[in-house]
Amino acid sequence: RIDGERLWANLMETARFGGTDDGGVRRLTLTAEDREVRAWLEARALAAGCSVSRDRLGNMFLRRAGRRDDLAPIAMGSHLDTQPTGGKFDGILGVLAGLEVIETLNEAGIETEHPIMLVNWTNEEGSRFAPAMLCSGAWAGVFTEDYVRARTDAKGISFGTALDAVSAAGEAPVGAEDFAAMFELHIEQGPVLEREELTIGVVTGVQGMRWYDLDLTGRAAHAGSTPMDARADALLAASGLIRGASVIASRLGGYATVGELTIRDPSRNVVPGALSMTFDLRHGEDAGLEAMESDLKAQIAGLEPGISADLRQIWSSPPVHFDPGCLASVREAAKSLGHRDMVSGAGHDAAYVARRAPTAMIFVPCAGGLSHNPAESATPEDCAAGAQVLLDALLIHDRR
Amino acid sequence: RIDGERLWANLMETARFGGTDDGGVRRLTLTAEDREVRAWLEARALAAGCSVSRDRLGNMFLRRAGRRDDLAPIAMGSHLDTQPTGGKFDGILGVLAGLEVIETLNEAGIETEHPIMLVNWTNEEGSRFAPAMLCSGAWAGVFTEDYVRARTDAKGISFGTALDAVSAAGEAPVGAEDFAAMFELHIEQGPVLEREELTIGVVTGVQGMRWYDLDLTGRAAHAGSTPMDARADALLAASGLIRGASVIASRLGGYATVGELTIRDPSRNVVPGALSMTFDLRHGEDAGLEAMESDLKAQIAGLEPGISADLRQIWSSPPVHFDPGCLASVREAAKSLGHRDMVSGAGHDAAYVARRAPTAMIFVPCAGGLSHNPAESATPEDCAAGAQVLLDALLIHDRR
Ligand SMILES: NC(=O)NCCC(=O)O
Ligand SMILES: NC(=O)NCCC(=O)O
Repeated sequence: RIDGERLWANLMETARFGGTDDGGVRRLTLTAEDREVRAWLEARALAAGCSVSRDRLGNMFLRRAGRRDDLAPIAMGSHLDTQPTGGKFDGILGVLAGLEVIETLNEAGIETEHPIMLVNWTNEEGSRFAPAMLCSGAWAGVFTEDYVRARTDAKGISFGTALDAVSAAGEAPVGAEDFAAMFELHIEQGPVLEREELTIGVVTGVQGMRWYDLDLTGRAAHAGSTPMDARADALLAASGLIRGASVIASRLGGYATVGELTIRDPSRNVVPGALSMTFDLRHGEDAGLEAMESDLKAQIAGLEPGISADLRQIWSSPPVHFDPGCLASVREAAKSLGHRDMVSGAGHDAAYVARRAPTAMIFVPCAGGLSHNPAESATPEDCAAGAQVLLDALLIHDRR
Repeated sequence: RIDGERLWANLMETARFGGTDDGGVRRLTLTAEDREVRAWLEARALAAGCSVSRDRLGNMFLRRAGRRDDLAPIAMGSHLDTQPTGGKFDGILGVLAGLEVIETLNEAGIETEHPIMLVNWTNEEGSRFAPAMLCSGAWAGVFTEDYVRARTDAKGISFGTALDAVSAAGEAPVGAEDFAAMFELHIEQGPVLEREELTIGVVTGVQGMRWYDLDLTGRAAHAGSTPMDARADALLAASGLIRGASVIASRLGGYATVGELTIRDPSRNVVPGALSMTFDLRHGEDAGLEAMESDLKAQIAGLEPGISADLRQIWSSPPVHFDPGCLASVREAAKSLGHRDMVSGAGHDAAYVARRAPTAMIFVPCAGGLSHNPAESATPEDCAAGAQVLLDALLIHDRR
């Protein structure tokens, strides 16, 4: 049985790296804080007898030998990077529970058939470098190494430069590792398990998501002498789209979010002449996503003549369905606990891993469904239960 | 008669300081570019035989002696700072036309009764440091020196620090100079003169303006798993207010502008939890301004319960009416040109000077009424005509 107290202590200990006054964690990928938590994990994995390797994008692979080292490893893991306003659990639980699984196997003297591989994927959040799940995507062959290295953050720093600055890259070619299977434990980031008083979500898939950049150009003008009906106000136009996207999402049963909006050369007494903004559209069905996108495009086409728009889709991740075999292992591991099947609203590294290896996910509840917020929280009991299901699913799968 | 070609050459020459590729000028107050244009003006004024003094806020006073140096000087001038997306004329024309007036008087060997004082006021635009007309306001006693020095820009740099960094301050106490009268020439920044094919606007006053800062706080949340009806999206709330303010202004015959909006910790896949934005409300009548403000407050009070708001009025400048005597001098100077009375939509240093000295303004047309935009433009002929009216109004006033 896994040690819930040790797991919790590790969660609290790593929350120091990038910890904020409001109890959250601000640990953007490939920053000094990320470097610290990576070093911590590496030291703990080495102490647990793992061999450690890193690929050229900084993905970390921590391997516990199996009885048959000719078999591909069964993988576990998630990510240690956070949002600017992140919490202590999103991603982190999946990595630290994996570490806990390895330490528990060691203490119990259990030898598995397959090697066990704990993975920390680089840049899952997509906040510093878009898109999300960038380096699990590269592992799966969705993105090339060059594409990944060329992504830039809001300050214009490239992924490659940031990676080198924290010396996070290793020698291993990207995608060199094969997995027999992969299990990712994560907080739900939604309200369903808590509301239904269940402990485990058996995650059967991930909804589809599309990301866009939009530039709007109107005409900068004087705030005090430009008549209201003679303006081409880029921010006023953006306001209509923000409200419109929200209405589209509600009507079509999806999600729409404008998370970034930056006025070019802002000034209190200047009508905004140009701005950039982002859209995040999500839906469980491809057809739903398609409808949301065409509705958004229609709204943009309907902007007043003085406003010109440049919409670019920068990412598309279609709905994902996990592997029935892996799901069966999770269901069996969870059978003594309250559980249900569910679809993930958030993207996860497992969604890309699923393109190359049989994969499934395990959810545990989080308070109020709140995530990407410093107040994100999960109970020690639920974290321990999730780690136990992860261990059991792994052992069940190993014996199949 | 003033030399229109020399005036135009000076306008083009100073446009190099902070000149941008799109033909505009980006010369925020108390930057390196502002330092350069100040040095240029000081050198030219000294060459024209003026004595130069600066007060402790960097206001520049360039004085041409009169027959009776016991009389208070008649002042002219405006400002040399620009918006981030500024043009070559806003403020600059008023200063360079003043220089042209002095050089013309010198060449014609004309001695005036009063001394003539050309002024370059610091931080008129209000873009780097709010509010606008900060240092003409200090001269007029509206703001204390401490208040001015403590204003901060978007990077948190104070006015005092910026002033010292470019060594723009002098020894003279703020407000030490008295003016017998003041005339400010400016481009109209609106479409009326051009539309009516007139050359001169006799500016009888300036509309009222109020500036506000608003902070909105909702709840940061995950873009992929937070249901649309469970969000407290600060940006969605802001969008409603942006549209609402625009509607208020149109209905009440005023102006409303949101020129700055900054999401706190923005991320593409995070529902915005908090943001700051500005409002600029203007109206010709105090009652109109009052109605706009209470309408805006009602909209803020009506925001959904999950959003909290903190509105702070940071500036209020009531409608200004210029001096009948100065206006008579301008009207007489303009009598051979197409002219009309008008009210200014933009704020001007003259609006604060009017609190201490008899004041009036002269407008010339600008293309399409466009200002606070790199494409701002005025013709050499109109600039020359404006400078001639400035000279003539000054001489008429001097003889009264
Ligand atoms: N799990 C998670 O929050 N991933 C970030 C990518 C997304 O926006 O869904
Ligand atoms: N003239 C001018 O553009 N002044 C700036 C202050 C204002 O916003 O009216």
